[in-house]
Amino acid sequence: MYEQVKEAIQGINAINVTPFDEELNIDWGSLQKNISFLLEKGLKAIYPCGNTGEFYALSKDESMEVTRFVTDFIAKRSVVIAGVGYDVKTARELAQHAESCGADGIMIHQPVHPYLLTDGLIDYYKEIAVSTTLPIVLYIRSEHISLEAIQEITKLPNVIGVKYAFNNLPHFTKIVQIIKEDIVWICGTAEMWAPFYYAAGAKGFTSGLVNVETSRSFQMLEALKDGNYPAAMSVWEEIAPFEELRAKYLNGNNVSIVKEAMSQLGLIAHSAVRPPISKINENEKHQVHELLQRWGF
Amino acid sequence: MYEQVKEAIQGINAINVTPFDEELNIDWGSLQKNISFLLEKGLKAIYPCGNTGEFYALSKDESMEVTRFVTDFIAKRSVVIAGVGYDVKTARELAQHAESCGADGIMIHQPVHPYLLTDGLIDYYKEIAVSTTLPIVLYIRSEHISLEAIQEITKLPNVIGVKYAFNNLPHFTKIVQIIKEDIVWICGTAEMWAPFYYAAGAKGFTSGLVNVETSRSFQMLEALKDGNYPAAMSVWEEIAPFEELRAKYLNGNNVSIVKEAMSQLGLIAHSAVRPPISKINENEKHQVHELLQRWGF
Repeated sequence: MYEQVKEAIQGINAINVTPFDEELNIDWGSLQKNISFLLEKGLKAIYPCGNTGEFYALSKDESMEVTRFVTDFIAKRSVVIAGVGYDVKTARELAQHAESCGADGIMIHQPVHPYLLTDGLIDYYKEIAVSTTLPIVLYIRSEHISLEAIQEITKLPNVIGVKYAFNNLPHFTKIVQIIKEDIVWICGTAEMWAPFYYAAGAKGFTSGLVNVETSRSFQMLEALKDGNYPAAMSVWEEIAPFEELRAKYLNGNNVSIVKEAMSQLGLIAHSAVRPPISKINENEKHQVHELLQRWGF
Repeated sequence: MYEQVKEAIQGINAINVTPFDEELNIDWGSLQKNISFLLEKGLKAIYPCGNTGEFYALSKDESMEVTRFVTDFIAKRSVVIAGVGYDVKTARELAQHAESCGADGIMIHQPVHPYLLTDGLIDYYKEIAVSTTLPIVLYIRSEHISLEAIQEITKLPNVIGVKYAFNNLPHFTKIVQIIKEDIVWICGTAEMWAPFYYAAGAKGFTSGLVNVETSRSFQMLEALKDGNYPAAMSVWEEIAPFEELRAKYLNGNNVSIVKEAMSQLGLIAHSAVRPPISKINENEKHQVHELLQRWGF
């Protein structure tokens, strides 16, 4: 199983959305549509309960329901890696739940605790890791997680991948060079950063864009696999306007833009998002519309 | 009730610890000792489930038990303001629980969601605020929360205080000047920053130090109330070595140092902390010991 998951995450790591209805309840029909779309387009690794899935706007029970629903519906047609997090006890519960649902792996969100220490972090990940037989992808979002901590945590036998997401490329490069374990290094900040991470040794990238449109992300993947950076950068140029809209307001727009685009294309029923984020304004909706037109929709 | 709470938070806002035993279960006896100490020393506002209380290392159920225990034990001998947070649904549950326990207010932790938008934030706080009749202290920890958002949120009728904790003093000053609501502005980064916040209009500060030693924090409070900055800065100098130890490792040591000092003084039974933090090393333990000696213990 480990080898199959490792292979799947070497490529596009699709972070699905959690669609809501206008009352902000989970819209299961739209979630099924979202997952169907990803399967149809050939995505091989799908992550329910990631940040594009508004994990932190779901209650614990809802996140468990989302993991179960997505895992059941995918039924082994792709690899499912479920996001888990919070305090150790809750993270272990979520991990065990994912395993009992038949998920293929877990992604451990970075602890939300404001204070982090190397030994404490190692214990944090170790205690979650020993609670499950599933392979683990670490999600590293800040430099508060020391190199020493990452070195120790990647020695845990079920850690197979690291999704690195704070864009300090020299730091990332150093980690890739120093750590000798067999780890799949994943660019955690999607297409805009993928070429640079690949230059340092990444073998996969995350994507929220693939919920909307997949051809450009696959073109980028092929270019990067071939080491063809000029080709990658030319796709980059096409993707940039969309990702720049997502990056507005210190990334506040990240999910709202994706859901708006999906809703304009009929891929989900509503563009609704939960607080602390909100729908984009009319002007931005228009920009999304124009961009989708430019992309040929 | 509102006026009494408003008065209590104009001063030292004590964030109690959550003591653990060596197996990392909550040590209720030590928690009672910790709260007794704070009451005895005359602290008027006590916050269970704050960051010094390792809120993010507690499960939801544990945080509810801590709030109930502290509120019951204090039994109106001081104001109790319980930390609540996470997704809207969970935060409302925690708020309603705090109210049913008889707490005097809630402090809403900044949402842990990585994406924030002004309208979404306003909705986030509004939905929590309408779920309770308790007065609310906002805990603002990053510049991701726009001035516009703070302006709207402070208009909610039960918001009485803002604990501001990202140390952008011109930004803080601007907020204090612009917002005309009757809000108690609190320095959220304790004694080391309190004088500067007071210069800008703060009327209270948070403290983890008071779990260990209260006389210096009260001296600082008196000096600041009198507008006697030279006196405040002279206390500052005495407090600094302790707070500098806490600030080590990007603040990773924040709670571990407090618990070590409390344990050395017999104020709690163990210095145990939960992952993702860990106990301090022998060298730092020695530094704490020396410091406590210098303080006359």
